[in-house]
Amino acid sequence: MFFSAGDTASSPPARAVRADDVVLTGDRPTGVLHLGHYAGSLANRVALQGRCTQTLLIADLQALTDASGHAAHVAAHVEEVALDYLAAGIDPAVTTIAVQSRLPALAELTVLYLNLVTVARLERNPTVKAEVELRGFARDIPAGFLCYPVSQAADITGFLATLVPVGEDQLPMIEQTNEIVRRVNRLAGAPDDAPVLTECRALLSSTPRLPGVDGRKASKSLGNAIPLSASADDIRRLVHAMYTDPGHVRASDPGRVEGNVVFAYLEAFDPDAAAVEELEARYRRGGLGDATVKRRLVDVLEQLVAPMRARRAAFANDRGYVRDILREGTARGDEVTRQVLRSVRRAFALDE
Amino acid sequence: MFFSAGDTASSPPARAVRADDVVLTGDRPTGVLHLGHYAGSLANRVALQGRCTQTLLIADLQALTDASGHAAHVAAHVEEVALDYLAAGIDPAVTTIAVQSRLPALAELTVLYLNLVTVARLERNPTVKAEVELRGFARDIPAGFLCYPVSQAADITGFLATLVPVGEDQLPMIEQTNEIVRRVNRLAGAPDDAPVLTECRALLSSTPRLPGVDGRKASKSLGNAIPLSASADDIRRLVHAMYTDPGHVRASDPGRVEGNVVFAYLEAFDPDAAAVEELEARYRRGGLGDATVKRRLVDVLEQLVAPMRARRAAFANDRGYVRDILREGTARGDEVTRQVLRSVRRAFALDE
Repeated sequence: MFFSAGDTASSPPARAVRADDVVLTGDRPTGVLHLGHYAGSLANRVALQGRCTQTLLIADLQALTDASGHAAHVAAHVEEVALDYLAAGIDPAVTTIAVQSRLPALAELTVLYLNLVTVARLERNPTVKAEVELRGFARDIPAGFLCYPVSQAADITGFLATLVPVGEDQLPMIEQTNEIVRRVNRLAGAPDDAPVLTECRALLSSTPRLPGVDGRKASKSLGNAIPLSASADDIRRLVHAMYTDPGHVRASDPGRVEGNVVFAYLEAFDPDAAAVEELEARYRRGGLGDATVKRRLVDVLEQLVAPMRARRAAFANDRGYVRDILREGTARGDEVTRQVLRSVRRAFALDE
Repeated sequence: MFFSAGDTASSPPARAVRADDVVLTGDRPTGVLHLGHYAGSLANRVALQGRCTQTLLIADLQALTDASGHAAHVAAHVEEVALDYLAAGIDPAVTTIAVQSRLPALAELTVLYLNLVTVARLERNPTVKAEVELRGFARDIPAGFLCYPVSQAADITGFLATLVPVGEDQLPMIEQTNEIVRRVNRLAGAPDDAPVLTECRALLSSTPRLPGVDGRKASKSLGNAIPLSASADDIRRLVHAMYTDPGHVRASDPGRVEGNVVFAYLEAFDPDAAAVEELEARYRRGGLGDATVKRRLVDVLEQLVAPMRARRAAFANDRGYVRDILREGTARGDEVTRQVLRSVRRAFALDE
């Protein structure tokens, strides 16, 4: 799903984006953002600023679909995610940051769209299937979770998004959204050249998913991710703990670069790609110790994170300002989504 | 379901209603109301006026859960149902008449409650099961239909209803609503003596369901119901067509009263119960022709319907007034449901 604090796969090829595109991404506020989010998505969002219309949706309602028992935790992380955005360089004057639960039009769109999708169709959704398995819901899947592709369609269409950055595995979500779009247009009897809603395109990522420091999937609960707000000490400690090549015992031994987390991070963040390639060649041949490569990575990450850390600290000292940003972004989102709701309601013959 | 244009079973025993009760009923605007609705529910709503707080919800969104292809038909019938209410004697100064689709708080409550109910629980709901079978949805059940017990819980709790008139078969709906109520209260950590939401009671009907003129279930699509707006000619024609006892060929033959539609209507509407009992005894013995009983029923129905017809005609001539009533009732409903939404959002830690 494209709103996931665990989702790190997304790097739009620049040529796929048009100036009149409306891009929607966002995050579930279930934890602070980490370097995986930065490499996979946040860096691209910063790069997209000013090149097209962009909204970041803090998907707190969607976070409740599998965490309604942790509502307070989700609520507390809405501002943390906003701080991470600002720290990463998102400019709220250019990019709209909105809070999902404060946009009532999205709930209304969801309820309307539920009539256009069958239960069988939702159950067939591969992303839902996979997530159900992953979370071990089995038969006890919350109804909100089964219905979340519909809620996601409400988000995408509510913002009139034309381009949605997703991973390969999330393509069924885009398909489901476009099915709903076509049904609304048919319901409205809209002519092909003036549809009520327009279909969206997927912006497929080419960036491989950045692993956690232990080589497993980066996850807050495993404590294996490097938060954007990491201190210099955190970075040293986490890089030190990184999984490399267990067969690479002495510096003189030949080592494996594939599956080696240190090199995965260097590839993602070291601005000197040629130097990284050379290091990899030396590591493969033998004669390069883990300690040396890790020292380089610590420097690279510290240079990346230090300015974010400083920005985050400044914004964290001015919570009122952060709340203002969320209030203004949400007000803009409210206006857009209400306007879309009005036209969808007309399609359902629900004009007042 | 308690919002059904086909639902005719509901006659509250007066003693079950307290002055501080909040009663919620309503109808899906899928057609005009008929005498079955009057006997089963509308007459009681008129009787309840002033005895407790009462809201009638015109459930146009719920009507879309199985009729999204007939959105224009549903929209057109919102005012028709309101006209039927006014014709039947509902006083908008005492009873609130609100339109479901214009109460955004209900959609928001629905989306929140979806997180508190599992898909398995919804699929086990006997009312959903029965309706799925009845409508032949099988695997193609719209998601909105599966979720409608949740939407109904939103309606009931959104109006803080304490008493909900239902038929025996709708008790699982009340149970589902109270499950959600308990979950919200647990989520909020509310003390038992100050819950966020209060459980509701079912007001069970004792009135038998009034059949259609052909003895089958009264239904708009079968054309076998007598609309509240029937003309004197309609009444004569429909009573004339009524199913009686096919074995009762000559007036002198003994006849059956059970399953005899004419007597079912006389029992429901003739103000002189003793006279009806005497007629039934004569009919059983033999010596009473169908034509005689039908003439009496035509008179009884004409006396009941004539003043409704007159009121309906007057209101139909002043559509602006009807729209004002809906606007004012919906505004009152909007205030109540928004206040409930605020406290439920707090339970989900979603305060702004």
